[in-house]
Amino acid sequence: MSSASIGIFDSGMGGLTVMRALRARLPGENFVYLGDTARLPYGTKSADTVTRYAVQASAALMRHGIKLLVVACNTASAAALPTLAETLAPLPVVGVIAPGAAAAVAAAPDGPIAVIATEGTVKGGAYVRAIQAIAPHMPVVQQAAPLFVALAEEGLHDGPLPELAAQRYLGPLLATVPRPRGLVLGCTHFPVLKAVIGQVAGPEVTLIDSAETTAAAVENVLREKNLLNGEGGGTARFLATDAPGRFAHLGQIFLGEPIDPGSVTLVDL
Amino acid sequence: MSSASIGIFDSGMGGLTVMRALRARLPGENFVYLGDTARLPYGTKSADTVTRYAVQASAALMRHGIKLLVVACNTASAAALPTLAETLAPLPVVGVIAPGAAAAVAAAPDGPIAVIATEGTVKGGAYVRAIQAIAPHMPVVQQAAPLFVALAEEGLHDGPLPELAAQRYLGPLLATVPRPRGLVLGCTHFPVLKAVIGQVAGPEVTLIDSAETTAAAVENVLREKNLLNGEGGGTARFLATDAPGRFAHLGQIFLGEPIDPGSVTLVDL
Repeated sequence: MSSASIGIFDSGMGGLTVMRALRARLPGENFVYLGDTARLPYGTKSADTVTRYAVQASAALMRHGIKLLVVACNTASAAALPTLAETLAPLPVVGVIAPGAAAAVAAAPDGPIAVIATEGTVKGGAYVRAIQAIAPHMPVVQQAAPLFVALAEEGLHDGPLPELAAQRYLGPLLATVPRPRGLVLGCTHFPVLKAVIGQVAGPEVTLIDSAETTAAAVENVLREKNLLNGEGGGTARFLATDAPGRFAHLGQIFLGEPIDPGSVTLVDL
Repeated sequence: MSSASIGIFDSGMGGLTVMRALRARLPGENFVYLGDTARLPYGTKSADTVTRYAVQASAALMRHGIKLLVVACNTASAAALPTLAETLAPLPVVGVIAPGAAAAVAAAPDGPIAVIATEGTVKGGAYVRAIQAIAPHMPVVQQAAPLFVALAEEGLHDGPLPELAAQRYLGPLLATVPRPRGLVLGCTHFPVLKAVIGQVAGPEVTLIDSAETTAAAVENVLREKNLLNGEGGGTARFLATDAPGRFAHLGQIFLGEPIDPGSVTLVDL
Protein backbone atom coordinates (compact mmCIF):
# COMPACT_ATOMS: atom_id res chain seq x y z
CA MET A 1 0.00 0.00 0.00
CA SER A 2 2.81 2.48 0.78
CA SER A 3 4.08 2.09 -2.81
CA ALA A 4 0.68 3.26 -4.11
CA SER A 5 0.70 6.69 -5.75
CA ILE A 6 -0.18 10.05 -4.29
CA GLY A 7 -2.95 11.53 -6.44
CA ILE A 8 -2.83 15.25 -7.18
CA PHE A 9 -5.73 17.10 -8.74
CA ASP A 10 -5.80 20.62 -10.20
CA SER A 11 -7.91 22.54 -12.70
CA GLY A 12 -4.87 22.74 -14.97
CA MET A 13 -1.13 23.17 -14.60
CA GLY A 14 -0.84 25.53 -11.62
CA GLY A 15 -1.00 22.59 -9.19
CA LEU A 16 2.34 21.42 -10.56
CA THR A 17 3.91 24.04 -8.21
CA VAL A 18 2.51 21.94 -5.35
CA MET A 19 3.76 18.71 -6.95
CA ARG A 20 7.20 20.32 -7.26
CA ALA A 21 7.33 20.91 -3.49
CA LEU A 22 6.04 17.35 -2.88
CA ARG A 23 8.64 15.78 -5.18
CA ALA A 24 11.42 17.72 -3.43
CA ARG A 25 10.24 16.69 0.04
CA LEU A 26 9.16 13.10 -0.74
CA PRO A 27 11.51 11.83 -3.50
CA GLY A 28 10.55 8.18 -2.90
CA GLU A 29 6.86 8.70 -3.64
CA ASN A 30 5.08 7.86 -6.88
CA PHE A 31 2.74 10.55 -8.19
CA VAL A 32 -0.20 10.66 -10.55
CA TYR A 33 -1.33 14.18 -11.42
CA LEU A 34 -4.63 15.06 -13.08
CA GLY A 35 -5.06 18.48 -14.74
CA ASP A 36 -8.60 19.26 -15.94
CA THR A 37 -7.17 21.35 -18.78
CA ALA A 38 -10.31 21.03 -20.94
CA ARG A 39 -12.44 22.83 -18.38
CA LEU A 40 -10.03 25.27 -16.75
CA PRO A 41 -10.20 27.84 -15.26
CA TYR A 42 -12.23 26.94 -12.17
CA GLY A 43 -11.87 30.39 -10.60
CA THR A 44 -14.90 31.94 -12.34
CA LYS A 45 -17.22 28.90 -12.01
CA SER A 46 -19.87 28.37 -9.35
CA ALA A 47 -19.11 26.26 -6.26
CA ASP A 48 -21.62 23.62 -7.45
CA THR A 49 -19.95 23.17 -10.82
CA VAL A 50 -16.46 23.11 -9.28
CA THR A 51 -17.60 20.45 -6.80
CA ARG A 52 -19.12 18.32 -9.56
CA TYR A 53 -15.91 18.52 -11.63
CA ALA A 54 -13.74 17.78 -8.56
CA VAL A 55 -15.74 14.64 -7.77
CA GLN A 56 -15.34 13.42 -11.39
CA ALA A 57 -11.58 14.11 -11.32
CA SER A 58 -11.07 12.35 -8.00
CA ALA A 59 -12.98 9.31 -9.30
CA ALA A 60 -10.54 9.12 -12.24
CA LEU A 61 -7.57 9.27 -9.83
CA MET A 62 -9.15 6.59 -7.59
CA ARG A 63 -9.01 4.22 -10.58
CA HIS A 64 -5.20 4.54 -10.29
CA GLY A 65 -5.29 3.10 -6.76
CA ILE A 66 -4.02 6.20 -4.97
CA LYS A 67 -3.27 6.19 -1.23
CA LEU A 68 -3.92 9.93 -0.65
CA LEU A 69 -5.46 12.79 -2.64
CA VAL A 70 -3.98 16.29 -2.76
CA VAL A 71 -6.42 18.95 -4.01
CA ALA A 72 -3.75 21.29 -5.37
CA CYS A 73 -6.24 23.89 -6.60
CA ASN A 74 -7.31 26.67 -4.25
CA THR A 75 -10.71 27.10 -5.89
CA ALA A 76 -11.49 23.37 -5.67
CA SER A 77 -10.13 23.17 -2.10
CA ALA A 78 -12.37 26.09 -1.14
CA ALA A 79 -15.49 24.72 -2.82
CA ALA A 80 -15.25 20.95 -2.69
CA LEU A 81 -13.05 19.70 0.15
CA PRO A 82 -15.82 18.55 2.55
CA THR A 83 -17.67 16.78 -0.29
CA LEU A 84 -14.47 15.07 -1.50
CA ALA A 85 -13.45 13.95 2.01
CA GLU A 86 -16.91 12.46 2.52
CA THR A 87 -17.12 10.82 -0.92
CA LEU A 88 -13.64 9.29 -0.78
CA ALA A 89 -13.49 8.30 2.92
CA PRO A 90 -11.44 6.64 4.38
CA LEU A 91 -8.91 7.97 1.81
CA PRO A 92 -7.05 10.96 3.29
CA VAL A 93 -7.70 14.18 1.35
CA VAL A 94 -5.39 17.20 1.77
CA GLY A 95 -6.31 20.64 0.38
CA VAL A 96 -4.16 23.76 0.08
CA ILE A 97 -6.29 26.26 2.05
CA ALA A 98 -5.69 25.03 5.63
CA PRO A 99 -1.89 24.65 5.15
CA GLY A 100 -1.79 28.09 3.47
CA ALA A 101 -3.74 29.65 6.33
CA ALA A 102 -1.43 28.06 8.92
CA ALA A 103 1.63 29.33 7.06
CA ALA A 104 0.14 32.83 6.89
CA VAL A 105 -0.52 33.00 10.63
CA ALA A 106 2.98 31.66 11.36
CA ALA A 107 4.58 34.22 9.02
CA ALA A 108 2.54 37.24 10.16
CA PRO A 109 1.27 36.44 13.68
CA ASP A 110 0.36 40.08 14.38
CA GLY A 111 -1.40 40.55 11.01
CA PRO A 112 -3.15 41.90 9.16
CA ILE A 113 -3.10 39.21 6.49
CA ALA A 114 -3.98 39.94 2.85
CA VAL A 115 -5.18 37.25 0.43
CA ILE A 116 -5.16 37.37 -3.38
CA ALA A 117 -7.00 34.54 -5.12
CA THR A 118 -9.53 33.74 -7.85
CA GLU A 119 -13.03 35.22 -7.89
CA GLY A 120 -14.50 31.91 -6.62
CA THR A 121 -12.05 31.54 -3.73
CA VAL A 122 -12.51 35.15 -2.58
CA LYS A 123 -16.30 34.95 -2.81
CA GLY A 124 -16.46 31.72 -0.78
CA GLY A 125 -14.31 33.26 1.99
CA ALA A 126 -12.50 29.96 2.70
CA TYR A 127 -9.16 31.64 3.54
CA VAL A 128 -10.83 34.08 5.93
CA ARG A 129 -12.51 31.20 7.78
CA ALA A 130 -9.33 29.05 7.80
CA ILE A 131 -7.14 31.90 9.10
CA GLN A 132 -9.64 32.96 11.75
CA ALA A 133 -10.09 29.32 12.86
CA ILE A 134 -6.42 29.54 13.97
CA ALA A 135 -6.31 33.23 14.98
CA PRO A 136 -9.90 34.31 15.72
CA HIS A 137 -9.27 38.07 15.81
CA MET A 138 -6.91 38.26 12.83
CA PRO A 139 -7.94 40.97 10.34
CA VAL A 140 -8.01 39.54 6.81
CA VAL A 141 -8.42 41.53 3.58
CA GLN A 142 -9.07 39.88 0.22
CA GLN A 143 -8.80 40.75 -3.49
CA ALA A 144 -9.72 38.67 -6.56
CA ALA A 145 -6.89 38.81 -9.15
CA PRO A 146 -8.22 37.03 -12.24
CA LEU A 147 -5.79 38.70 -14.66
CA PHE A 148 -2.86 37.06 -12.85
CA VAL A 149 -4.12 33.66 -14.08
CA ALA A 150 -4.09 34.84 -17.71
CA LEU A 151 -0.66 36.46 -17.30
CA ALA A 152 0.83 33.32 -15.69
CA GLU A 153 -0.60 31.09 -18.42
CA GLU A 154 0.71 33.36 -21.17
CA GLY A 155 4.20 33.20 -19.65
CA LEU A 156 4.15 36.97 -18.94
CA HIS A 157 6.01 36.79 -15.63
CA ASP A 158 7.72 40.19 -15.63
CA GLY A 159 7.65 43.55 -17.36
CA PRO A 160 5.12 46.40 -17.39
CA LEU A 161 1.92 44.35 -17.83
CA PRO A 162 2.23 42.14 -14.71
CA GLU A 163 3.59 45.17 -12.82
CA LEU A 164 0.52 47.26 -13.66
CA ALA A 165 -1.78 44.36 -12.81
CA ALA A 166 0.02 43.89 -9.47
CA GLN A 167 -0.35 47.60 -8.69
CA ARG A 168 -4.04 47.42 -9.53
CA TYR A 169 -4.73 44.41 -7.32
CA LEU A 170 -2.33 45.10 -4.44
CA GLY A 171 -2.94 48.87 -4.22
CA PRO A 172 -6.20 48.65 -2.24
CA LEU A 173 -4.82 45.82 -0.04
CA LEU A 174 -1.64 47.73 0.81
CA ALA A 175 -3.71 50.80 1.72
CA THR A 176 -5.17 48.82 4.66
CA VAL A 177 -4.24 50.40 8.02
CA PRO A 178 -2.23 48.91 9.61
CA ARG A 179 -0.47 47.68 6.49
CA PRO A 180 -0.72 43.87 5.90
CA ARG A 181 2.40 41.97 6.95
CA GLY A 182 1.56 38.73 5.17
CA LEU A 183 0.21 38.20 1.63
CA VAL A 184 -1.23 34.79 0.75
CA LEU A 185 -0.77 33.77 -2.91
CA GLY A 186 -4.13 31.99 -2.89
CA CYS A 187 -3.99 30.45 -6.36
CA THR A 188 -1.42 27.94 -7.61
CA HIS A 189 -0.81 30.10 -10.68
CA PHE A 190 0.50 33.02 -8.66
CA PRO A 191 3.89 31.68 -7.46
CA VAL A 192 5.28 32.15 -11.00
CA LEU A 193 4.56 35.90 -10.60
CA LYS A 194 6.21 36.00 -7.16
CA ALA A 195 9.04 38.37 -8.16
CA VAL A 196 6.71 41.08 -9.51
CA ILE A 197 4.21 40.66 -6.66
CA GLY A 198 7.01 40.89 -4.09
CA GLN A 199 8.44 44.00 -5.75
CA VAL A 200 5.08 45.81 -5.70
CA ALA A 201 4.24 44.62 -2.15
CA GLY A 202 7.61 45.75 -0.79
CA PRO A 203 10.08 44.09 1.59
CA GLU A 204 7.92 44.37 4.74
CA VAL A 205 5.27 42.03 3.35
CA THR A 206 5.96 38.28 3.57
CA LEU A 207 4.58 36.30 0.59
CA ILE A 208 2.93 33.01 1.52
CA ASP A 209 2.76 30.23 -1.01
CA SER A 210 0.96 27.12 0.25
CA ALA A 211 3.02 24.62 -1.77
CA GLU A 212 5.67 24.05 0.93
CA THR A 213 3.24 23.78 3.83
CA THR A 214 0.91 21.52 1.85
CA ALA A 215 3.85 19.20 1.15
CA ALA A 216 4.66 19.17 4.90
CA ALA A 217 1.00 18.38 5.70
CA VAL A 218 1.03 15.46 3.23
CA GLU A 219 4.23 14.09 4.80
CA ASN A 220 2.64 14.26 8.27
CA VAL A 221 -0.48 12.38 7.19
CA LEU A 222 1.55 9.66 5.44
CA ARG A 223 3.87 9.25 8.45
CA GLU A 224 0.89 9.00 10.84
CA LYS A 225 -0.70 6.32 8.67
CA ASN A 226 2.58 4.48 8.06
CA LEU A 227 2.27 5.05 4.32
CA LEU A 228 5.60 6.75 3.49
CA ASN A 229 7.47 5.17 0.60
CA GLY A 230 11.18 4.53 -0.01
CA GLU A 231 14.14 6.88 -0.28
CA GLY A 232 14.15 8.03 -3.88
CA GLY A 233 13.38 7.00 -7.45
CA GLY A 234 9.71 7.99 -7.25
CA THR A 235 7.82 8.13 -10.53
CA ALA A 236 5.53 10.78 -12.05
CA ARG A 237 2.59 10.21 -14.37
CA PHE A 238 0.17 12.80 -15.71
CA LEU A 239 -3.44 12.80 -16.89
CA ALA A 240 -4.91 15.78 -18.79
CA THR A 241 -8.44 16.29 -20.10
CA ASP A 242 -7.17 18.22 -23.14
CA ALA A 243 -4.05 18.67 -25.28
CA PRO A 244 -1.42 16.43 -23.60
CA GLY A 245 1.34 17.92 -25.76
CA ARG A 246 0.57 21.46 -24.57
CA PHE A 247 0.44 20.12 -21.00
CA ALA A 248 3.93 18.60 -21.26
CA HIS A 249 5.32 21.74 -22.89
CA LEU A 250 3.85 24.42 -20.58
CA GLY A 251 3.76 22.25 -17.45
CA GLN A 252 7.55 22.30 -17.19
CA ILE A 253 7.43 26.00 -16.17
CA PHE A 254 5.32 25.12 -13.14
CA LEU A 255 6.92 21.75 -12.25
CA GLY A 256 10.49 22.99 -12.60
CA GLU A 257 11.63 19.79 -14.33
CA PRO A 258 11.12 18.37 -17.83
CA ILE A 259 7.89 16.45 -18.54
CA ASP A 260 8.19 13.55 -20.97
CA PRO A 261 5.25 13.92 -23.42
CA GLY A 262 4.91 10.12 -23.28
CA SER A 263 4.05 10.32 -19.57
CA VAL A 264 0.94 12.47 -20.23
CA THR A 265 -2.29 10.60 -21.01
CA LEU A 266 -5.49 12.17 -22.37
CA VAL A 267 -8.56 11.31 -20.23
CA ASP A 268 -12.25 12.15 -20.56
CA LEU A 269 -14.09 12.80 -17.29
CA MET B 1 -41.72 27.00 -38.93
CA SER B 2 -40.79 30.66 -39.48
CA SER B 3 -41.82 31.42 -35.87
CA ALA B 4 -39.28 28.87 -34.63
CA SER B 5 -36.28 30.35 -32.81
CA ILE B 6 -32.85 31.17 -34.13
CA GLY B 7 -30.33 29.28 -31.98
CA ILE B 8 -27.09 31.03 -31.06
CA PHE B 9 -24.17 29.21 -29.51
CA ASP B 10 -21.07 30.65 -27.86
CA SER B 11 -18.48 29.52 -25.33
CA GLY B 12 -19.74 32.19 -22.94
CA MET B 13 -21.10 35.71 -23.14
CA GLY B 14 -19.02 37.22 -25.98
CA GLY B 15 -21.48 35.88 -28.58
CA LEU B 16 -24.10 38.23 -27.16
CA THR B 17 -22.41 40.95 -29.29
CA VAL B 18 -23.55 38.93 -32.32
CA MET B 19 -27.03 38.46 -30.85
CA ARG B 20 -27.19 42.24 -30.33
CA ALA B 21 -26.61 42.84 -34.06
CA LEU B 22 -29.15 40.11 -34.92
CA ARG B 23 -31.83 41.58 -32.61
CA ALA B 24 -31.32 45.03 -34.15
CA ARG B 25 -31.58 43.70 -37.72
CA LEU B 26 -34.29 41.07 -37.16
CA PRO B 27 -36.58 42.41 -34.39
CA GLY B 28 -39.35 39.94 -35.22
CA GLU B 29 -37.24 36.86 -34.58
CA ASN B 30 -37.27 34.70 -31.45
CA PHE B 31 -33.86 33.77 -30.10
CA VAL B 32 -32.50 31.07 -27.84
CA TYR B 33 -28.88 31.63 -26.83
CA LEU B 34 -26.64 29.00 -25.23
CA GLY B 35 -23.45 30.08 -23.43
CA ASP B 36 -21.18 27.23 -22.32
CA THR B 37 -20.07 29.27 -19.30
CA ALA B 38 -18.99 26.21 -17.27
CA ARG B 39 -16.33 25.28 -19.82
CA LEU B 40 -15.20 28.63 -21.22
CA PRO B 41 -12.79 29.74 -22.56
CA TYR B 42 -12.57 27.69 -25.76
CA GLY B 43 -9.61 29.70 -27.12
CA THR B 44 -6.93 27.60 -25.41
CA LYS B 45 -8.54 24.18 -26.00
CA SER B 46 -7.71 21.72 -28.78
CA ALA B 47 -9.83 21.64 -31.94
CA ASP B 48 -11.06 18.12 -31.00
CA THR B 49 -12.34 19.22 -27.61
CA VAL B 50 -13.94 22.38 -29.02
CA THR B 51 -15.69 20.29 -31.69
CA ARG B 52 -16.99 17.82 -29.08
CA TYR B 53 -18.33 20.65 -26.92
CA ALA B 54 -19.89 22.42 -29.92
CA VAL B 55 -21.74 19.25 -30.97
CA GLN B 56 -23.13 18.85 -27.42
CA ALA B 57 -24.23 22.50 -27.30
CA SER B 58 -25.93 22.36 -30.70
CA ALA B 59 -27.80 19.20 -29.63
CA ALA B 60 -29.17 21.12 -26.62
CA LEU B 61 -30.33 23.94 -28.91
CA MET B 62 -31.92 21.46 -31.36
CA ARG B 63 -34.16 20.32 -28.51
CA HIS B 64 -35.62 23.85 -28.62
CA GLY B 65 -36.75 23.32 -32.22
CA ILE B 66 -34.52 25.97 -33.79
CA LYS B 67 -34.75 26.85 -37.50
CA LEU B 68 -31.13 28.02 -37.90
CA LEU B 69 -27.95 27.83 -35.82
CA VAL B 70 -25.50 30.73 -35.45
CA VAL B 71 -22.07 29.72 -34.15
CA ALA B 72 -21.25 33.07 -32.56
CA CYS B 73 -17.85 31.98 -31.29
CA ASN B 74 -14.82 32.43 -33.52
CA THR B 75 -12.92 29.51 -31.97
CA ALA B 76 -15.87 27.12 -32.44
CA SER B 77 -16.56 28.45 -35.95
CA ALA B 78 -12.90 27.87 -36.84
CA ALA B 79 -12.75 24.36 -35.36
CA ALA B 80 -16.21 22.85 -35.69
CA LEU B 81 -18.23 24.42 -38.51
CA PRO B 82 -17.89 21.56 -41.05
CA THR B 83 -18.72 18.95 -38.39
CA LEU B 84 -21.75 20.94 -37.16
CA ALA B 85 -23.10 21.55 -40.67
CA GLU B 86 -22.81 17.82 -41.42
CA THR B 87 -24.28 16.69 -38.08
CA LEU B 88 -27.24 19.09 -38.18
CA ALA B 89 -28.08 18.99 -41.92
CA PRO B 90 -30.45 20.13 -43.37
CA LEU B 91 -30.52 22.82 -40.64
CA PRO B 92 -28.68 25.92 -41.89
CA VAL B 93 -25.56 26.71 -39.81
CA VAL B 94 -23.91 30.16 -39.98
CA GLY B 95 -20.49 30.83 -38.45
CA VAL B 96 -18.70 34.14 -37.88
CA ILE B 97 -15.46 33.51 -39.77
CA ALA B 98 -16.68 33.69 -43.40
CA PRO B 99 -18.79 36.85 -42.80
CA GLY B 100 -15.84 38.43 -40.94
CA ALA B 101 -13.45 37.58 -43.78
CA ALA B 102 -15.85 39.05 -46.37
CA ALA B 103 -16.18 42.25 -44.31
CA ALA B 104 -12.40 42.52 -44.01
CA VAL B 105 -11.83 42.22 -47.76
CA ALA B 106 -14.59 44.77 -48.42
CA ALA B 107 -13.12 47.24 -45.91
CA ALA B 108 -9.47 46.84 -46.93
CA PRO B 109 -9.48 45.55 -50.53
CA ASP B 110 -5.82 46.45 -51.07
CA GLY B 111 -4.71 44.92 -47.75
CA PRO B 112 -2.76 43.88 -45.88
CA ILE B 113 -5.25 42.52 -43.34
CA ALA B 114 -4.32 41.87 -39.72
CA VAL B 115 -6.23 39.42 -37.50
CA ILE B 116 -6.27 39.29 -33.70
CA ALA B 117 -7.99 36.24 -32.19
CA THR B 118 -7.63 33.47 -29.60
CA GLU B 119 -4.71 31.04 -29.60
CA GLY B 120 -6.92 28.31 -31.12
CA THR B 121 -8.29 30.48 -33.95
CA VAL B 122 -4.83 31.79 -34.88
CA LYS B 123 -3.28 28.31 -34.80
CA GLY B 124 -6.00 26.83 -37.02
CA GLY B 125 -5.54 29.59 -39.62
CA ALA B 126 -9.26 29.73 -40.46
CA TYR B 127 -9.29 33.51 -41.07
CA VAL B 128 -6.28 33.30 -43.37
CA ARG B 129 -8.00 30.61 -45.45
CA ALA B 130 -11.37 32.42 -45.49
CA ILE B 131 -9.80 35.76 -46.53
CA GLN B 132 -7.63 34.17 -49.21
CA ALA B 133 -10.60 32.19 -50.53
CA ILE B 134 -12.05 35.60 -51.51
CA ALA B 135 -8.81 37.44 -52.29
CA PRO B 136 -6.18 34.82 -53.11
CA HIS B 137 -3.13 37.09 -52.95
CA MET B 138 -4.14 39.09 -49.90
CA PRO B 139 -1.35 39.28 -47.29
CA VAL B 140 -2.70 38.34 -43.85
CA VAL B 141 -0.85 38.71 -40.53
CA GLN B 142 -2.12 37.17 -37.27
CA GLN B 143 -1.62 37.59 -33.53
CA ALA B 144 -3.13 35.65 -30.61
CA ALA B 145 -4.39 38.06 -27.93
CA PRO B 146 -5.47 35.87 -24.97
CA LEU B 147 -5.18 38.66 -22.38
CA PHE B 148 -7.93 40.61 -24.18
CA VAL B 149 -10.41 37.88 -23.19
CA ALA B 150 -9.51 38.22 -19.49
CA LEU B 151 -9.64 42.03 -19.69
CA ALA B 152 -13.04 42.02 -21.41
CA GLU B 153 -14.45 39.56 -18.87
CA GLU B 154 -13.12 41.61 -15.95
CA GLY B 155 -14.84 44.72 -17.35
CA LEU B 156 -11.44 46.44 -17.85
CA HIS B 157 -12.35 48.21 -21.10
CA ASP B 158 -10.11 51.27 -20.85
CA GLY B 159 -7.16 52.63 -18.91
CA PRO B 160 -3.48 51.69 -18.81
CA LEU B 161 -3.84 47.89 -18.60
CA PRO B 162 -5.83 47.36 -21.82
CA GLU B 163 -3.70 50.05 -23.50
CA LEU B 164 -0.46 48.23 -22.64
CA ALA B 165 -1.96 44.91 -23.74
CA ALA B 166 -3.07 46.49 -27.04
CA GLN B 167 0.40 47.91 -27.62
CA ARG B 168 1.92 44.50 -26.92
CA TYR B 169 -0.36 42.64 -29.33
CA LEU B 170 -0.75 45.26 -32.08
CA GLY B 171 2.89 46.44 -32.09
CA PRO B 172 4.24 43.57 -34.22
CA LEU B 173 1.18 43.63 -36.52
CA LEU B 174 1.43 47.38 -37.14
CA ALA B 175 5.14 47.00 -37.95
CA THR B 176 4.16 44.98 -41.06
CA VAL B 177 5.23 46.72 -44.30
CA PRO B 178 3.04 47.92 -45.90
CA ARG B 179 1.06 48.73 -42.79
CA PRO B 180 -2.23 46.75 -42.42
CA ARG B 181 -5.33 48.70 -43.47
CA GLY B 182 -7.89 46.35 -41.89
CA LEU B 183 -7.83 44.72 -38.46
CA VAL B 184 -10.23 41.82 -37.82
CA LEU B 185 -11.47 41.54 -34.21
CA GLY B 186 -11.50 37.76 -34.47
CA CYS B 187 -13.05 36.98 -31.08
CA THR B 188 -16.49 38.03 -29.88
CA HIS B 189 -14.95 39.39 -26.66
CA PHE B 190 -12.91 42.00 -28.47
CA PRO B 191 -15.61 44.48 -29.62
CA VAL B 192 -15.96 45.72 -26.01
CA LEU B 193 -12.29 46.80 -26.21
CA LYS B 194 -12.83 48.52 -29.58
CA ALA B 195 -12.07 52.05 -28.32
CA VAL B 196 -8.64 51.13 -26.91
CA ILE B 197 -7.77 48.89 -29.87
CA GLY B 198 -8.76 51.65 -32.33
CA GLN B 199 -6.72 54.24 -30.45
CA VAL B 200 -3.56 52.09 -30.52
CA ALA B 201 -4.12 50.99 -34.14
CA GLY B 202 -4.61 54.59 -35.33
CA PRO B 203 -7.14 56.17 -37.71
CA GLU B 204 -5.80 54.56 -40.92
CA VAL B 205 -6.70 51.06 -39.76
CA THR B 206 -10.35 49.97 -40.16
CA LEU B 207 -11.55 47.67 -37.37
CA ILE B 208 -13.70 44.76 -38.54
CA ASP B 209 -16.17 43.18 -36.18
CA SER B 210 -18.05 40.24 -37.68
CA ALA B 211 -21.28 40.79 -35.72
CA GLU B 212 -22.91 43.05 -38.36
CA THR B 213 -21.94 40.93 -41.37
CA THR B 214 -22.96 37.72 -39.59
CA ALA B 215 -26.39 39.24 -38.91
CA ALA B 216 -26.65 40.16 -42.62
CA ALA B 217 -25.67 36.59 -43.60
CA VAL B 218 -28.37 35.16 -41.31
CA GLU B 219 -30.99 37.46 -42.83
CA ASN B 220 -30.01 36.32 -46.32
CA VAL B 221 -30.26 32.64 -45.46
CA LEU B 222 -33.67 33.09 -43.80
CA ARG B 223 -34.99 35.14 -46.75
CA GLU B 224 -33.78 32.52 -49.23
CA LYS B 225 -35.51 29.76 -47.29
CA ASN B 226 -38.66 31.79 -46.65
CA LEU B 227 -38.14 31.57 -42.91
CA LEU B 228 -38.18 35.26 -41.87
CA ASN B 229 -40.53 36.03 -39.00
CA GLY B 230 -42.79 39.02 -38.27
CA GLU B 231 -42.08 42.69 -37.80
CA GLY B 232 -41.16 43.03 -34.11
CA GLY B 233 -41.84 41.67 -30.66
CA GLY B 234 -39.29 38.85 -30.92
CA THR B 235 -38.40 37.04 -27.70
CA ALA B 236 -35.05 36.14 -26.14
CA ARG B 237 -34.28 33.15 -23.94
CA PHE B 238 -30.92 32.10 -22.56
CA LEU B 239 -29.31 28.82 -21.51
CA ALA B 240 -26.06 28.76 -19.52
CA THR B 241 -24.03 25.76 -18.32
CA ASP B 242 -23.00 27.60 -15.13
CA ALA B 243 -24.08 30.46 -12.85
CA PRO B 244 -27.24 31.87 -14.56
CA GLY B 245 -27.23 34.89 -12.21
CA ARG B 246 -23.70 35.87 -13.24
CA PHE B 247 -24.71 35.36 -16.89
CA ALA B 248 -27.67 37.76 -16.56
CA HIS B 249 -25.56 40.32 -14.73
CA LEU B 250 -22.44 40.35 -16.93
CA GLY B 251 -24.23 39.48 -20.18
CA GLN B 252 -25.90 42.88 -20.31
CA ILE B 253 -22.55 44.52 -21.12
CA PHE B 254 -22.27 42.42 -24.27
CA LEU B 255 -25.95 42.35 -25.28
CA GLY B 256 -26.49 46.07 -24.74
CA GLU B 257 -29.92 45.54 -23.15
CA PRO B 258 -31.04 44.24 -19.75
CA ILE B 259 -31.29 40.46 -19.26
CA ASP B 260 -34.10 39.25 -16.98
CA PRO B 261 -32.48 36.67 -14.63
CA GLY B 262 -35.71 34.64 -14.97
CA SER B 263 -35.02 34.18 -18.70
CA VAL B 264 -31.72 32.37 -18.04
CA THR B 265 -31.92 28.59 -17.48
CA LEU B 266 -29.11 26.39 -16.16
CA VAL B 267 -28.41 23.40 -18.46
CA ASP B 268 -25.98 20.49 -18.22
CA LEU B 269 -24.47 19.33 -21.52
